[in-house]
Amino acid sequence: MEFATEQEHRAWLATQAALPAGFRTGKAAFAFTPAEVPKPARMTLTVIALDAPTPDFAAVFTRNAFPGAPVLVGRRRLSAPQLGAIVVNNKISNVCAPGGVEAAERVCAEAARLLKIDANAVLPSSTGVIGWRLPVEPMCGALPEAIAALQARSVLPAAEGIMTTDLYPKVRRAEVGAGRIVGIAKGAGMIEPNLATMLVYLLTDLAVPREHLRAALARAVEPSFNAISVDSDQSTSDTVVLLASGRVPCEEAAAFDAALLRVCAALAEDVVRNGEGVKHVVRCAVRHAPSAAIAKAIGKSVINSPLMQCAICGNDPNIGRLVMAVGKCVGNQFPDLDLSACTLTIGPDCVFANGAFRIDPAVEARLSAYLKDAELYASKPPDANGVFRPAVTWPAHERTVEMTVDLARGRESFTVLGCDRTHEYISENADYRS
Amino acid sequence: MEFATEQEHRAWLATQAALPAGFRTGKAAFAFTPAEVPKPARMTLTVIALDAPTPDFAAVFTRNAFPGAPVLVGRRRLSAPQLGAIVVNNKISNVCAPGGVEAAERVCAEAARLLKIDANAVLPSSTGVIGWRLPVEPMCGALPEAIAALQARSVLPAAEGIMTTDLYPKVRRAEVGAGRIVGIAKGAGMIEPNLATMLVYLLTDLAVPREHLRAALARAVEPSFNAISVDSDQSTSDTVVLLASGRVPCEEAAAFDAALLRVCAALAEDVVRNGEGVKHVVRCAVRHAPSAAIAKAIGKSVINSPLMQCAICGNDPNIGRLVMAVGKCVGNQFPDLDLSACTLTIGPDCVFANGAFRIDPAVEARLSAYLKDAELYASKPPDANGVFRPAVTWPAHERTVEMTVDLARGRESFTVLGCDRTHEYISENADYRS
Repeated sequence: MEFATEQEHRAWLATQAALPAGFRTGKAAFAFTPAEVPKPARMTLTVIALDAPTPDFAAVFTRNAFPGAPVLVGRRRLSAPQLGAIVVNNKISNVCAPGGVEAAERVCAEAARLLKIDANAVLPSSTGVIGWRLPVEPMCGALPEAIAALQARSVLPAAEGIMTTDLYPKVRRAEVGAGRIVGIAKGAGMIEPNLATMLVYLLTDLAVPREHLRAALARAVEPSFNAISVDSDQSTSDTVVLLASGRVPCEEAAAFDAALLRVCAALAEDVVRNGEGVKHVVRCAVRHAPSAAIAKAIGKSVINSPLMQCAICGNDPNIGRLVMAVGKCVGNQFPDLDLSACTLTIGPDCVFANGAFRIDPAVEARLSAYLKDAELYASKPPDANGVFRPAVTWPAHERTVEMTVDLARGRESFTVLGCDRTHEYISENADYRS
Repeated sequence: MEFATEQEHRAWLATQAALPAGFRTGKAAFAFTPAEVPKPARMTLTVIALDAPTPDFAAVFTRNAFPGAPVLVGRRRLSAPQLGAIVVNNKISNVCAPGGVEAAERVCAEAARLLKIDANAVLPSSTGVIGWRLPVEPMCGALPEAIAALQARSVLPAAEGIMTTDLYPKVRRAEVGAGRIVGIAKGAGMIEPNLATMLVYLLTDLAVPREHLRAALARAVEPSFNAISVDSDQSTSDTVVLLASGRVPCEEAAAFDAALLRVCAALAEDVVRNGEGVKHVVRCAVRHAPSAAIAKAIGKSVINSPLMQCAICGNDPNIGRLVMAVGKCVGNQFPDLDLSACTLTIGPDCVFANGAFRIDPAVEARLSAYLKDAELYASKPPDANGVFRPAVTWPAHERTVEMTVDLARGRESFTVLGCDRTHEYISENADYRS
């Protein structure tokens, strides 16, 4: 898909956004003053509600050892009998703030009272500044408006409500028989330069029991959300939730699993494509590895190499950096792995085989053009304050830079999705002072 | 030390640069045309020669699984009976180029013939573009001039000869009784945007036997060169060599070891301070850890966090990112480590204790000023082509941003040295097209 304008992208999003049966979403925005920095701020509170609480839900959370309060509460909710609603706020992530768990529980309890469900049937979710306290009273004050706004037509208002500085909302869907899975994601974004958070909510009207949902979600996140990197920094708040309203019989479990994986993979790619300062999306496939773990480690080493990222930003087919990134991973982590049959491919060209490069001016020119073609936009000069801003605020196309590392030493493979490193990223995270 | 001008820094370098007894250096520069990219280029060939070959030498090399040809040859030289000279070229690193080992050996053989020593007493060393072939004939043609230029006064010409786009030469010395250790380093630099290489040569006139030299070097590199990161990308050519001419009796082995560590640590810090686009040097000390390996992993996670690096670039005391970087490492690698007693300190302030932040507007203002004070220079706006260049070409001061992670869970510690991530780094590695 290609989108020439933001309007074209919005029109396409509308085609994805119909809510599955049994779900409603609503939101409310309000002004408040953070306790830590006494200047005006705004927060949006988004409610995702089931018409009736469901025992069939699944969630996975960050492995960061300093998880946010909503993650601590969310892990407890996994053993709750039912889930009836999710309350999501942006602006403050409620991480390591004094009294964070109690604040999250108070918001849940108020939402539960208004929705007439159990307090432990409400899942809290927060994204934004780390360390600040949630404004519990204004949030509870905004809940009636958000709940009054609940509607069953479109997930798009919720996809917008959970954004911070995401450039655009992210919605993906898949049909499974008479039912569907609809997912929304909040990608790598900042309000002030603070830690980005990835939040994903997957809604389905298919009747899939809890145990199957949890196993399917665990399988789906590994090759999708666990296979992406914008900047190698893992949030304290990452959360993926899957809720089933059970309105539509699920005839075929395998079809559900496959559809869930498609939605997760598409949202994961959306998160990277909308990552901070991203101008190129890069996909590194590692094939014929002795194990998937080795393939993943090599793919991550390539995707997270700052020098590789900078070369791609500059449309520079700097294949020496690709060799370096493979070699540093193997040399340090898997020193016994034989690389003598390793081949490296970028786009149409095999650039390395039998331990030596295959380069000439024609290959160089072809690869430069290939990288240029995958660019989402050409950078604009910085503004008067020296700040670089992305030149488009929608996903102009879905092309990626494709790299393959073929180890010729086994049957396993893993594919990692990442991006380039740009002036726009530095501006997003260094040039704005909080 | 602080240097207000490049001249002040040069004057200080001259005080460091007297060669130990028994060594001479010389160099020659010449023009050539690379086979792969038919445009004019220049190379400097530097020779470091002993007055008489020595059995007492040590070297450590990169762990990258695609090492350069000089590293492959260098590993063989470790078992040679004696070493008499090192021949170093810049511009081309001789990595994964067809026939690379043979090319390196031909240059060594010609140098040996002119110096009247064995061919396997010459160590080759190369830095620059990955993948290109060495221009063997022009290099052999330049060797007589380099050897005719050998002089016994100063190591500074050699320190300059091995530079690529290093901003300045790096020389450090230590006295041990009547003898000395003098070291030079080539830091993270690019001519075209290709992989940076770290090369270090340590020369001493002290009589220290080979076995002791090798053990002492292995001990010295771990807390110095193995404890730094400019961009987490490991070169295919990293090399540290230590040569002893044996002219001065070594009275006390422990004093030699301590002096060697001081020189290595100072050169390692020089490499970071002159790293590409570096505006802040950052030191992260991890204390009271269950093991040095855990302390090192946490320190590396903090130092290599792109979001932490960007915050420091912007003089932004974004302590949420410090917590994130510690938490992602521990959560993924050491999930059983208890962080409940962990404290985090930046400069003068403890910012995190008992699982929660300690922040207020006064702390924020003090930390911003602290970061600003550690800045090497304020960025200049980009040029007409949008390229950012460092505002100073010498180390303006030796201040660092000091961070401490105290785990309160053991007796081990490790300190990692790194830097910020800046527009100047992106310009160095993306804006210049090769």
